[in-house]
Amino acid sequence: MKNKLPKQNINFSEWYTQIVKKAGLADYGPVKGTMVIKPYGFQLWENIKDSFDSMIKKTGHVNAYFPLFIPKSFLAKEAEHVEGFAKECAIVTHTRLKNDKKNGVVIDPKSKLEEEIIVRPTSETVIWSMYKKWIQSYRDLPILINQWANVVRWEMKTRLFLRTSEFLWQEGHTAHETKEEAKKETLDILELYRQLAEDYLAVPVFTGVKTDSEKFAGAEKTYCIEAMMGDKRALQAGTSHNLGQNFAKAFDVKFQTKDNKEEFVWATSWGVSTRLIGAVILTHGDDIGLRIPPKIAPVQIVIVPISKNDDDEKAIKLFLSSIIKSLKMAGVRIHVDWTNNSPGYKFNEWEMKGVPLRMEVGPRDIENNKVVLVRRDLGEKMFLSKQDVLSAVPKLLEEIQNNLFIQAKKFRDINTHSVSTYDEFCSIMKTGGFIRCGWDGSSKTELKIKEDTKATIRCIPFDEKPEDLCCVFSGKPAKHEVIFAKAY
Amino acid sequence: MKNKLPKQNINFSEWYTQIVKKAGLADYGPVKGTMVIKPYGFQLWENIKDSFDSMIKKTGHVNAYFPLFIPKSFLAKEAEHVEGFAKECAIVTHTRLKNDKKNGVVIDPKSKLEEEIIVRPTSETVIWSMYKKWIQSYRDLPILINQWANVVRWEMKTRLFLRTSEFLWQEGHTAHETKEEAKKETLDILELYRQLAEDYLAVPVFTGVKTDSEKFAGAEKTYCIEAMMGDKRALQAGTSHNLGQNFAKAFDVKFQTKDNKEEFVWATSWGVSTRLIGAVILTHGDDIGLRIPPKIAPVQIVIVPISKNDDDEKAIKLFLSSIIKSLKMAGVRIHVDWTNNSPGYKFNEWEMKGVPLRMEVGPRDIENNKVVLVRRDLGEKMFLSKQDVLSAVPKLLEEIQNNLFIQAKKFRDINTHSVSTYDEFCSIMKTGGFIRCGWDGSSKTELKIKEDTKATIRCIPFDEKPEDLCCVFSGKPAKHEVIFAKAY
Repeated sequence: MKNKLPKQNINFSEWYTQIVKKAGLADYGPVKGTMVIKPYGFQLWENIKDSFDSMIKKTGHVNAYFPLFIPKSFLAKEAEHVEGFAKECAIVTHTRLKNDKKNGVVIDPKSKLEEEIIVRPTSETVIWSMYKKWIQSYRDLPILINQWANVVRWEMKTRLFLRTSEFLWQEGHTAHETKEEAKKETLDILELYRQLAEDYLAVPVFTGVKTDSEKFAGAEKTYCIEAMMGDKRALQAGTSHNLGQNFAKAFDVKFQTKDNKEEFVWATSWGVSTRLIGAVILTHGDDIGLRIPPKIAPVQIVIVPISKNDDDEKAIKLFLSSIIKSLKMAGVRIHVDWTNNSPGYKFNEWEMKGVPLRMEVGPRDIENNKVVLVRRDLGEKMFLSKQDVLSAVPKLLEEIQNNLFIQAKKFRDINTHSVSTYDEFCSIMKTGGFIRCGWDGSSKTELKIKEDTKATIRCIPFDEKPEDLCCVFSGKPAKHEVIFAKAY
Repeated sequence: MKNKLPKQNINFSEWYTQIVKKAGLADYGPVKGTMVIKPYGFQLWENIKDSFDSMIKKTGHVNAYFPLFIPKSFLAKEAEHVEGFAKECAIVTHTRLKNDKKNGVVIDPKSKLEEEIIVRPTSETVIWSMYKKWIQSYRDLPILINQWANVVRWEMKTRLFLRTSEFLWQEGHTAHETKEEAKKETLDILELYRQLAEDYLAVPVFTGVKTDSEKFAGAEKTYCIEAMMGDKRALQAGTSHNLGQNFAKAFDVKFQTKDNKEEFVWATSWGVSTRLIGAVILTHGDDIGLRIPPKIAPVQIVIVPISKNDDDEKAIKLFLSSIIKSLKMAGVRIHVDWTNNSPGYKFNEWEMKGVPLRMEVGPRDIENNKVVLVRRDLGEKMFLSKQDVLSAVPKLLEEIQNNLFIQAKKFRDINTHSVSTYDEFCSIMKTGGFIRCGWDGSSKTELKIKEDTKATIRCIPFDEKPEDLCCVFSGKPAKHEVIFAKAY
């Protein structure tokens, strides 16, 4: 491939921009900040989606679909919520174009809507307006609904997968009888997010709760998974919100309890998005391209035939046919690259695309009844007999999956620091990384640290040990042990 | 269930409205004409979607995702296309709300967009603007991309699933080297649509080509599948368009051919939507509810335990456990209704929801080591020994699938007429049905017939025999044999 990536340690940001394009994952759309997810990127998304979809279905959730359009007045019903989303929404005002002799196709002013419509930035409001119709008694609860959908948040600074005006996600919206049940749901989902990130994406995460200044607009509590990217910055990879009774109150959703009283319904909402693809790229990518964890890889093994003529090609096809058949039967996702490009070109291309395993087969290999296997994660080359391939491939895919996780976790652990002074804090933040330290619980402190260093509190980790800690900034006794980092 | 449906032959339209709600399929959203697809309806859509998704993947197509937002100027690039969609589109003009002391939350006029944005009514324009970047040479072709997405067409008169302002669909957009290849793709896809309709939805369809006045805005030729609903009206259930070079020309997409020339790319587009759910309801539903074909049914067999006390319940659970396990292993979608409702209530509810098979098990059945099975399509009751259930259920599901198709085909054939005079034509159109007859090929004739009878040409069927036919209206020699009907 003629175009190489910039080195990560020289220009990480440019490395990211180029890898997304060169691996064929995505492209910008014509409207500013919109994203086209190309087939290879979309297959990755489908694999992530299918993994999570089966997790939530196993735990009793069902999918549904709610409208893209929300009446403007709905957004305003929950005060914090409108505050959070008002500044970044797409607003539909008209419904008809017409031909104008001077100016071509223009808006027909007669088609102006009485009430403006908001393109959903998230669906709490439209969904709770429906729950108002669906929920009367405890018999109607719980409701455990999820939807896979596109949402729009008008962003000024966009980056493919990480921050775009439109993105794809799932949003769960559940309704419960009790506060406890809602809290349990919020945490159960967070645990599924952790599993998705760690066991499928091979991205290690910290789990914890957000501070008030970082929580979702309209939530009582926001829980999150936070990951460290290759440039030591944090990426919020998923959030689960305990909404308390906020939206039930905003939309007047009451239910008759078992003991015949009337109470507002308890709610949760939670989401992960195509941003997860960004997390995979930024966690595992290296100077030569992507490294995709086998469980979610669109192609798990690519076969590159090394043939000089038609006879070679025939022999290779014959040699491969039983291997391919057996691997496919075993559920392995295979691609054979029969294009006319040179072997070297193909090696580079599939390394760029992050395929976990490469198999090379040429005439001499056939003579020796063996194949060459190359691991993308380590670059390691192996020579295997034809018979051994079938048992080796699934085992190698598992090893690669585990190794990517271990590498990422090691990197995160090395770059997660404790500090004893604020000077030390500031100096570490200059080179990057996570800092676990005490915080006095004041949002003023939080803001001051952000102004000084651009670092924010990513979460109060569940395993915090605030006892004996002092606030890194004020020196007061710590209310919480927290994780600070500069974030995407 | 306290609420019965209106009889189909008394008020078909009201029957439809009520069945959609009572079966728990869908509901209107807060913005006029938008639709909420409830979990049961969405499972039906997921099954239809998964069936078609695997069909197109098997034939080499891949999924991708293109933006919701289209610059206004793009829509205008293809003259017929903008004409077709200008009158029914949602237009985004602003991107920010603000608080106003007097009027609450209002549009921030400072956020007005320089160029208005159209919410996609279909994606040809945005996709061809990208293909312009992706296609240089014949090596980049064919592109066989599909996307599952939501689209918006502002509709005045809406009906759930049949015509809503927003709906879900798949839209395929392919790019080819030659005219012939594009034509073949258009027809190959139409054949997949026929299979989807007939083999999965059990909806018999006519396949053919649209007349110029009914074709897609921007297509050279539109092919379609047309089905007859229970009220004898036609429903266009899927369309496949040969776009020729129209969009390639509009977006200047040329490629270098194998013999080193430059040519515009050839294109197709094709779609089916959540309207297919409407087709299933309107084809198979009866006076007591839905009848869902087993292949796409969210629940294929519902088990209603008949228990009077805890001992009964225990015994039934024990008796059922091996049956349920084996059926699940065989891939049968089962639901056991353990709610507190009466058996009669449950029977009605699951008949309303159209579950193909019902199994009843009570204490006396257990004593006799048997179960009761009831077919939803025929109402037929069967008594089977426990041993026979496992082999009987898959066979019965297959029989029900076939029977629903045969019933629908018989109904359509009985109601498809030939006529010898225009008077006869008009009189039949009053009571409804399809008419196969000659047409002189003039759009004036087409329009006149529509004005007289509201009937339109649904398609020129592939198996037309225009020889020896005269136009039913003008008496001139027929250019085509066509199918007329009043349509949804």
